[in-house]
Amino acid sequence: MTVQHNRPRVRDMGINIGILPTGQHNSITDVPDVRVGHVSLIEGEGKLVPGKGPVRTGVTAIIPHGGNMFTEKVCAAIHIINGFGKSAGLSQVIELGNIETPIMLTNTFSIWTVADALVDYVSGQNPGIYSINPVVGECNDSSLNDILGRHVKREHVLRALQEAGKVNTEEGNVGAGVGMTGFEWKGGIGTASRLLPKDVGNFTLGVMVLNNTGLAIDFRIDGIPIGKELVPDTAATQEGIEGSIMLVIATDAPLTARQLGRVARRATFGLARAGAMASHSSGDFVIAFSTGNRIYSSGEQSISPDTFIPERQLSAFFRATIEATEEAIINSVLRAETMVGRDGVKRLGIPIAQVEGLVVQYRK
Amino acid sequence: MTVQHNRPRVRDMGINIGILPTGQHNSITDVPDVRVGHVSLIEGEGKLVPGKGPVRTGVTAIIPHGGNMFTEKVCAAIHIINGFGKSAGLSQVIELGNIETPIMLTNTFSIWTVADALVDYVSGQNPGIYSINPVVGECNDSSLNDILGRHVKREHVLRALQEAGKVNTEEGNVGAGVGMTGFEWKGGIGTASRLLPKDVGNFTLGVMVLNNTGLAIDFRIDGIPIGKELVPDTAATQEGIEGSIMLVIATDAPLTARQLGRVARRATFGLARAGAMASHSSGDFVIAFSTGNRIYSSGEQSISPDTFIPERQLSAFFRATIEATEEAIINSVLRAETMVGRDGVKRLGIPIAQVEGLVVQYRK
Amino acid sequence: MTVQHNRPRVRDMGINIGILPTGQHNSITDVPDVRVGHVSLIEGEGKLVPGKGPVRTGVTAIIPHGGNMFTEKVCAAIHIINGFGKSAGLSQVIELGNIETPIMLTNTFSIWTVADALVDYVSGQNPGIYSINPVVGECNDSSLNDILGRHVKREHVLRALQEAGKVNTEEGNVGAGVGMTGFEWKGGIGTASRLLPKDVGNFTLGVMVLNNTGLAIDFRIDGIPIGKELVPDTAATQEGIEGSIMLVIATDAPLTARQLGRVARRATFGLARAGAMASHSSGDFVIAFSTGNRIYSSGEQSISPDTFIPERQLSAFFRATIEATEEAIINSVLRAETMVGRDGVKRLGIPIAQVEGLVVQYRK
Amino acid sequence: MTVQHNRPRVRDMGINIGILPTGQHNSITDVPDVRVGHVSLIEGEGKLVPGKGPVRTGVTAIIPHGGNMFTEKVCAAIHIINGFGKSAGLSQVIELGNIETPIMLTNTFSIWTVADALVDYVSGQNPGIYSINPVVGECNDSSLNDILGRHVKREHVLRALQEAGKVNTEEGNVGAGVGMTGFEWKGGIGTASRLLPKDVGNFTLGVMVLNNTGLAIDFRIDGIPIGKELVPDTAATQEGIEGSIMLVIATDAPLTARQLGRVARRATFGLARAGAMASHSSGDFVIAFSTGNRIYSSGEQSISPDTFIPERQLSAFFRATIEATEEAIINSVLRAETMVGRDGVKRLGIPIAQVEGLVVQYRK
Repeated sequence: MTVQHNRPRVRDMGINIGILPTGQHNSITDVPDVRVGHVSLIEGEGKLVPGKGPVRTGVTAIIPHGGNMFTEKVCAAIHIINGFGKSAGLSQVIELGNIETPIMLTNTFSIWTVADALVDYVSGQNPGIYSINPVVGECNDSSLNDILGRHVKREHVLRALQEAGKVNTEEGNVGAGVGMTGFEWKGGIGTASRLLPKDVGNFTLGVMVLNNTGLAIDFRIDGIPIGKELVPDTAATQEGIEGSIMLVIATDAPLTARQLGRVARRATFGLARAGAMASHSSGDFVIAFSTGNRIYSSGEQSISPDTFIPERQLSAFFRATIEATEEAIINSVLRAETMVGRDGVKRLGIPIAQVEGLVVQYRK
Repeated sequence: MTVQHNRPRVRDMGINIGILPTGQHNSITDVPDVRVGHVSLIEGEGKLVPGKGPVRTGVTAIIPHGGNMFTEKVCAAIHIINGFGKSAGLSQVIELGNIETPIMLTNTFSIWTVADALVDYVSGQNPGIYSINPVVGECNDSSLNDILGRHVKREHVLRALQEAGKVNTEEGNVGAGVGMTGFEWKGGIGTASRLLPKDVGNFTLGVMVLNNTGLAIDFRIDGIPIGKELVPDTAATQEGIEGSIMLVIATDAPLTARQLGRVARRATFGLARAGAMASHSSGDFVIAFSTGNRIYSSGEQSISPDTFIPERQLSAFFRATIEATEEAIINSVLRAETMVGRDGVKRLGIPIAQVEGLVVQYRK
Repeated sequence: MTVQHNRPRVRDMGINIGILPTGQHNSITDVPDVRVGHVSLIEGEGKLVPGKGPVRTGVTAIIPHGGNMFTEKVCAAIHIINGFGKSAGLSQVIELGNIETPIMLTNTFSIWTVADALVDYVSGQNPGIYSINPVVGECNDSSLNDILGRHVKREHVLRALQEAGKVNTEEGNVGAGVGMTGFEWKGGIGTASRLLPKDVGNFTLGVMVLNNTGLAIDFRIDGIPIGKELVPDTAATQEGIEGSIMLVIATDAPLTARQLGRVARRATFGLARAGAMASHSSGDFVIAFSTGNRIYSSGEQSISPDTFIPERQLSAFFRATIEATEEAIINSVLRAETMVGRDGVKRLGIPIAQVEGLVVQYRK
Repeated sequence: MTVQHNRPRVRDMGINIGILPTGQHNSITDVPDVRVGHVSLIEGEGKLVPGKGPVRTGVTAIIPHGGNMFTEKVCAAIHIINGFGKSAGLSQVIELGNIETPIMLTNTFSIWTVADALVDYVSGQNPGIYSINPVVGECNDSSLNDILGRHVKREHVLRALQEAGKVNTEEGNVGAGVGMTGFEWKGGIGTASRLLPKDVGNFTLGVMVLNNTGLAIDFRIDGIPIGKELVPDTAATQEGIEGSIMLVIATDAPLTARQLGRVARRATFGLARAGAMASHSSGDFVIAFSTGNRIYSSGEQSISPDTFIPERQLSAFFRATIEATEEAIINSVLRAETMVGRDGVKRLGIPIAQVEGLVVQYRK
């Protein structure tokens, strides 16, 4: 459904963001155990009829590991860059430092349907459990999508979970990204990963973003001021573009919840480097988790003096986070194709040839 | 439906919590403009069949004012005492310092249905608005209720909103309180209010709680150690009772969001005085709002140098908050009648005669 | 110097706060490794001459363990109940989750002298270290003391550290407590401890408070409304009494920084039960640390899956914290003798006989 | 003393950071009422003898307005990017949303001397006041300076305050900046300002940084990857450079404390764009204040419905903050001359000709 292979990622243009090497597929799924699944919903066209369509939305599942997430929780942290958003489940993650369900991304008005379905999913695996904390992030795709129609249904959530794969590099108009706008161009899902330096350990850190934020004029690629040279003809309205961004960070390094909080706070740096500024109504949230530090049903955690990451080594994780966040955001724009949505609103895929021209011009 | 008139409030026992006078009805609805509505759902009995029942739950609406909440938002703040909970809408309130919908209370697994319905309600009043932040709090009534059945439906939410009244002193087994357990006795809804001292201004502060927390042994009334003398025969299991509490504070004083945050943090003191301790899994959340400080669609706020409450006067609001919180919690227990729920689980209404005896014994 | 043996602690009056057993001396020093030292400064009388006196102040050292605190840091957390205060070193504790110096308590205007001296002390033990985070708490003793005179000197800090003892039950007018006012009576230092239940492990939790907060009318002992019956003839002015309180919690249980944060937040409950309300200008701060979870120079931490405290067991630590905090606060008032300070201002020691009478009256 | 006129600011190189116009002098002192004063201490050379020297340090005063700061406080907010630092006074600013003293910057071990002196200064203006919250930020200049010697004395603090001027564009090796290292080059003080768009109002926003953070390899100027081409021969050790940065934001727009908090959180974006990453031990703190929203002794605040800045206009302040922060940081590096400090450690001023060459190469 999502044909995007003819659109390059930033690295395909010869631009390496930062200095650390990427994981095998330069995706959040490079982190061992992490799975990703997307269900994309694209139906109808023309005038908005709330409840009918057009539909330009979807749902994305990021699954920290393939086991039972409730009985084997992963250490986690939240950082709220700009709290103008409706994400579900954050308070409990902050308090307890763990996540006990897959993480879902969707549109603003579908988070409650998705949370509900996620409870069914986890409840089904854990009969008799009556307290479950679904974690669901959102961005607002109403500029293209019939958002009031809440077209994401329980079945889509379950499908995203069931079809989630161990290797996934889909980007742009997939899953929750279908109706999103990034830097006034078509935006959506982006991902990237980094390998930590050897002296820190044999670890990977991956980032997935749902990008619906930013002004065209501010967009930059590795510091090249793309937005000073290239803005879409049909610019999104100021109202339309202040959408928000969800940033999800995964690592297999056994970081504690407090350490993951420090890592999560560095996502802001990558966001800034791509040109975003968390404008007033852009709700920007970071969720970070470690598949390498788990809390079992017994109450035990898996971290030990032998595996504990010394605080001073966190700088390497900060760098990996910043680089992978910047790259994932840029990818989310480069890889998204033009989409026409409700009322004929058109979001242009950023023109690749022109971007490549600017890259050459600025970086020879 | 809820017959509770033969159960006294704490003040009917001759116990005045604190030193400030109460509002006319000693209820959160004493705060001008504030409305409260409850829909109680009680159906079936016997063995738990998820999806069927028995049903012991409900939904409560606290409406800051009778106008359009979205175009006339109220300044607000959140304090999270223990974040082990799933309440919806908190991040945006913290960031922007306002609430733009009625506040709903319900059971843990119904918050998403309720949030969804609340969006419909506000959207219906404001066509074309595609960003709405529903605020919904919850406690876990699964010890009595078929919580997985999610029996609170859209129609119940709308009814609670439509039937909300300007005077409401219902307590105990009403609305969201139907299935709750407080201090191992039957708990639920409680409310109280205080008048601020004249030199502060002609203001009222009211509190409503959804009480599902506490151990019997710790329950105290104005310092009288009720729990040392009186515990239910059928004590709730440790697991069952760690339920949580939602605390909602309203005032017509034009406090700023920052000042409301300070006020919200004092609810903990009232909670403590009633004997609660925010045990590990008791998710305790405070929502505070001011009907006297509004943010209009234009972007204007209503506060001015003339109406601004000097910081040093906040101590009076702190006292009012502590007193009303303590009293509302005690009321939530005193007023709740015995309820038999799923699988025959019985929560006893605290025996009034014995409580009255202890009050006499300890306070002559 | 400080004769207080003829004043009872609350437990000597037959009142047991809560249900958990105390440690051997019912003091923070019951926690293995924890040491406490006080230097009390009482000089001159009569009219206040800034820089000259009278002097009614001091400094208190709470030393987590007898080794090198910088190379063997202890896990720690901060909770700010009311941030109207000047304590030093909090941000770094919050960020890194550890404390690397002894914790000092003193008066508001002496924290910088004390911080400076503490840096010398730690620097002396660790030559070549140029980044040290001294943790110093304060309350305002200006109603009795020439606070602008800053009479606490480097030598007093070093003496408090050197003379700190493994058993210390001094309370009231000692160390930083010399010039403090609690509930409008003479206040100051108080301490208490609790043993954790066996199933949690063989752990102790201790609390030390520097109590300079509260109104007489609100003071209560185990729920007995002392303040409704007994207020000092020479009541402190509203201005004078809004002093603040420092609360320090120690445990040998190997809690993580995040878990210590949850524990620290429960100190508020003990504070509330004693009758305080964190009035506008009462800066109330909690510092919690674990001697059982250390961070070594190597970067290693000492916690392991075998020693990790399961989250659900934290409720026992919450109870211990609440009980010990309430008791330490009450002790700080009961044990403090009448003190006359600058300009002849007199703070009365609460009259023990009358308190004992009230205890008998209310509790048979 | 500080000759820097032959070193250009970034704008002198033809690089305009962002799109908003600067204030008259492109300095924090463009904000009406704001004054800045620096006292620079440079003495001795050769081997470090703690207590003797060499001295490479100083103190900087940022005075929000020329009146009595204590009786006319300014609304303010704090954002802690990385709390690994010792800044004084933050808790009270967070709680009350105001600043009541000038803001001082100095080295890590001198903050307590400076806080002490600042209390004397404010106390001298306000006899009989015994509660003052000095706000002092710090970075660690120990790689060049005898930091343990604490060479900043009371007299230097008072001089910085007294000599503070209404126009001040000094940068680099001045005041607290004397001994700092930025991106492994000589760093220190930098400043910049922006005019808000007309539709927001006739307001200015200014930023001053004390820059002691960053790796050479990461340094960028308006996205030009300077650090990929140019690193100092004598690179700072990893240990030495993780220094931290203080960021101070001033505006005359009457923002509330909550709104200033949102503004403060955008400083991170400017920091990121210059190439910093808040590495583990880089304590990065933001202080934001509004000279246009004051709190008077009477308790009144000056904001009104007429002057209140609608939330949606904050995006313009965010942009101004990001641009001015990025530019101030770049200026702090460009303007700082080579400095030789203790033990002959040399920090090179970044070579201007080479930077200019790179600017031409990358931007034609």
